Amino acid sequence: MSIANTPKPPYYAVIFTSIHTNKEKEEYDTASARMVELAQNMPGFLGVESLRDKSGFGITSVYWKDKESIKAWRYHEEHKIVKKRGRAIWYEKYIVRIAKVEKDYGKI
Amino acid sequence: MSIANTPKPPYYAVIFTSIHTNKEKEEYDTASARMVELAQNMPGFLGVESLRDKSGFGITSVYWKDKESIKAWRYHEEHKIVKKRGRAIWYEKYIVRIAKVEKDYGKI
Repeated sequence: MSIANTPKPPYYAVIFTSIHTNKEKEEYDTASARMVELAQNMPGFLGVESLRDKSGFGITSVYWKDKESIKAWRYHEEHKIVKKRGRAIWYEKYIVRIAKVEKDYGKI
Repeated sequence: MSIANTPKPPYYAVIFTSIHTNKEKEEYDTASARMVELAQNMPGFLGVESLRDKSGFGITSVYWKDKESIKAWRYHEEHKIVKKRGRAIWYEKYIVRIAKVEKDYGKI
């Protein structure tokens, strides 16, 4: 995992913060890898940054070209099924924040 | 660390993604804790979510009421000194993304 090589703003960030139940971890790991693979092939995908600690707390920030590409991913059939599973089994708590990146700067 | 209890959007996220040099780690830890303490007492501070793995890759998402509160924190004298130190010593690479949270949802 490293810093996502995003283009010049504006673009969008979907910040997904969650606390795992740590139930069905193997199933989750497989589904999670599959979701990253699928997302990366969606139009408008710009990058992903993700971390989780041992307690189950995680932050995933996915970058997208625009709201339309986020919407297309949100309604992707396989993603919808996995999200349902996530809400029911894997996540004790989570929040999804949709944010428009207006500016960025750094040393990259 | 847990999910930040942010209010109803709109508000702002400052997403700071970085790769540590792992130099002067003790000095960094002290400065980092001090910066969180200072930020929490700034007007408009809404919450922080932060993780770093063993390799030195980290994601910190700080939530603020508006651009004015981000600006006030950006130009805070003690913060400015620490940022300079960060650029010179602690961070191999970093990117700061300023994003307006337009929408959120979840299970919290």
